[in-house]
Amino acid sequence: MALKKKPVNGMKDILPREMEIRDYVTGIIKDTYRSFGFTPIETPCMEDIRNLTSNQGGENEKLIFKVLKRGEKLHLENAKTDLDVSDMGLRYDLTLPLSRFYANNENDLPSPFKALQIGNVWRADRPQRGRYRQFTQCDIDILGEPSDLAEIELILATTTCLDRIGFHGFEIRINERRILKAMAEYCGFDEDRFDILFITLDKMDKIGLDGVKEELIDEGFDAAAVDKYLDIFNQLKDKKDVKDGVDTLVSIIGDKLDPEVADSMKEIAESVNECKTADFELVFDPTLVRGMGYYTGTIFEIAIPEFGGSCGGGGRYDHMVGRFAGHDVPACGFSIGFERIIMLLLEHDFQIPQKPKTAFLIDKKLDGYKLSSVIKQANELRSQGQTVLIEKMKKNKKFQKQGLTDSGYTEIKEFYNDTVTD
Amino acid sequence: MALKKKPVNGMKDILPREMEIRDYVTGIIKDTYRSFGFTPIETPCMEDIRNLTSNQGGENEKLIFKVLKRGEKLHLENAKTDLDVSDMGLRYDLTLPLSRFYANNENDLPSPFKALQIGNVWRADRPQRGRYRQFTQCDIDILGEPSDLAEIELILATTTCLDRIGFHGFEIRINERRILKAMAEYCGFDEDRFDILFITLDKMDKIGLDGVKEELIDEGFDAAAVDKYLDIFNQLKDKKDVKDGVDTLVSIIGDKLDPEVADSMKEIAESVNECKTADFELVFDPTLVRGMGYYTGTIFEIAIPEFGGSCGGGGRYDHMVGRFAGHDVPACGFSIGFERIIMLLLEHDFQIPQKPKTAFLIDKKLDGYKLSSVIKQANELRSQGQTVLIEKMKKNKKFQKQGLTDSGYTEIKEFYNDTVTD
Repeated sequence: MALKKKPVNGMKDILPREMEIRDYVTGIIKDTYRSFGFTPIETPCMEDIRNLTSNQGGENEKLIFKVLKRGEKLHLENAKTDLDVSDMGLRYDLTLPLSRFYANNENDLPSPFKALQIGNVWRADRPQRGRYRQFTQCDIDILGEPSDLAEIELILATTTCLDRIGFHGFEIRINERRILKAMAEYCGFDEDRFDILFITLDKMDKIGLDGVKEELIDEGFDAAAVDKYLDIFNQLKDKKDVKDGVDTLVSIIGDKLDPEVADSMKEIAESVNECKTADFELVFDPTLVRGMGYYTGTIFEIAIPEFGGSCGGGGRYDHMVGRFAGHDVPACGFSIGFERIIMLLLEHDFQIPQKPKTAFLIDKKLDGYKLSSVIKQANELRSQGQTVLIEKMKKNKKFQKQGLTDSGYTEIKEFYNDTVTD
Repeated sequence: MALKKKPVNGMKDILPREMEIRDYVTGIIKDTYRSFGFTPIETPCMEDIRNLTSNQGGENEKLIFKVLKRGEKLHLENAKTDLDVSDMGLRYDLTLPLSRFYANNENDLPSPFKALQIGNVWRADRPQRGRYRQFTQCDIDILGEPSDLAEIELILATTTCLDRIGFHGFEIRINERRILKAMAEYCGFDEDRFDILFITLDKMDKIGLDGVKEELIDEGFDAAAVDKYLDIFNQLKDKKDVKDGVDTLVSIIGDKLDPEVADSMKEIAESVNECKTADFELVFDPTLVRGMGYYTGTIFEIAIPEFGGSCGGGGRYDHMVGRFAGHDVPACGFSIGFERIIMLLLEHDFQIPQKPKTAFLIDKKLDGYKLSSVIKQANELRSQGQTVLIEKMKKNKKFQKQGLTDSGYTEIKEFYNDTVTD
């Protein structure tokens, strides 16, 4: 019986054309982040199943590919749940493994530690167009830096990177978990229900103020509190400038917001606006929530006009390393939406800058010292960094040459048995 | 309860120092292979469990990490074997996925197709020093090229690559599956027992001629045939030159060996010796077997003096794509022992060529326009490709500076609140 030639459900083969763009973008990302002092690290693709199911990952924990226990450890006969037969899982993101990594290697790492990770993650999501069950994430994180220098550097590095890839006129939306909380407290919402409140708030860009109001009332929140809450967002609607927005917010909710939080937001904005090298706007977005429960401070998101949704994001998560290390370590990270960037470049038929590529077509009869002579000519060009493909001439030479041209071979040389004399 | 901070059993965290060497070597590999016309591809890390357990992978099939079925597909209550609860597995090599990939995408790929793959594979082997359950493989393959131009190009590309990484004076050992068979036939061994014969022969470099003889007799092979067999190896012992070796072999076993096989071996040797750019010897090794059952023709192996065993290898496997495609496609590949190379470079304290790295130490009090001024100076250098790290000054500045020097920061500048004036 023939074997299955399709990739497994929801995953894909990557062909040379896409792969070359991926390699090109990866190269820019590595170069740029390295210039900001980030150093690459890697962790295993698998993690202990207890780490992966420890309530750090929100909805992603439901999407884990679990790995079967092996040998004597596997007892199918008594198994009740999948956790009885599984000891590891494939990672669903790079943040949890990084936190484990840092806790495990803290003594061998500088502090603060600036990490760059590019790697695959897996989520057993329902497959849909442009969304795969294996995809590449690309994260930078700063661990051990409590001040907002971390946020400033993360935003500058990431925007420089996007600029070099070719994106302009995008937005970085910024908010603070403690701003979200202060606003909710000011309006008198019950802290136990903040999660539900924020899940609804997160839909603002899709369903608007009225939609959010309706949903909050449906959820049973107090109508007066909801009105008070939405009125703040109304007043902040045109306050996209961070200083302007935060000052307006403080003028409304006063000391419900820790002055340090307001100052930090304004300092980040001042430095980013003053030092940015890319063409983008830093925008205060008090409706920005970011799904993951582990964020503790600043949160941010990339919005590229060509996309509907976000194209990456991040924030501060000061308590996650502590789950592994036993003591907290300040941490802040930014993840680029790698797959979305690649998809956009492919859709726009992006051409990567290429060195000249030459094809040598050789007569089938060419052998012995004549073959060697042609290979030596190729090696000479190859040693100068050029790409030289050596291929046997086919019967349909015209078709063959067209194929080579399509593959980017701009020069094609032919070698016949009677013309190679060297 | 604190979470588990060690990596899962048999896998490892990769720290910056090793990661930088890995990135450096990967860069050379990609550049070199690209100059030979190889194009990168990628396949999912998981494959259908039926593909992985189809007798292509020899012993590796016993080491598969199997992935648990999900949702409604998982029926633990009736499960008898691990295959009842698993639908996918993590790939144990890159050759099987490549064959599936080629069969799946044949119409969108040039022919011949020269593929470069760098990716992780997983084997649930007993963990031991320097051997991990997740490791990187690095393969080049030529599909659709029946002539020995494939072998010649693979050997030249791989040796050029090793040379650029810094290896010299190594050996490429070469043999042919059909030579192995012809020798065995000549001595009258039963074809059904060739596998056992070759497994023993493969131990020649460890147990010598006498050891092999003893083991073959123990296995019940005919003593006269064994003597005849070992006598050939004795006569070939000093015939390391491929032409010399093959000619000697033909003088002994005559037309048991297809003359085309002998000619092809000699043509590969002639071209490789004539065109090689690296410092290595191509050596005829009639005891070379290579474990995988899928090889059909030429086989080769890298032997670097610093290592005991092999540091990569490959060969021709003309029937594997056919298992997926329904029709055979000639195929030949070469895999570099990536992990061994990295290990060796680490042990020799290999220093990668680096661009200058500068650290800016800033006073804790520095903020506002003064902070921005420092960041702008950093960005200026970064835009020129330099690495600039910005870090807050610590109380123990001497210790901090020592750490930075250890991390490769050759220049360290300090910025105080009263000295930054811009």
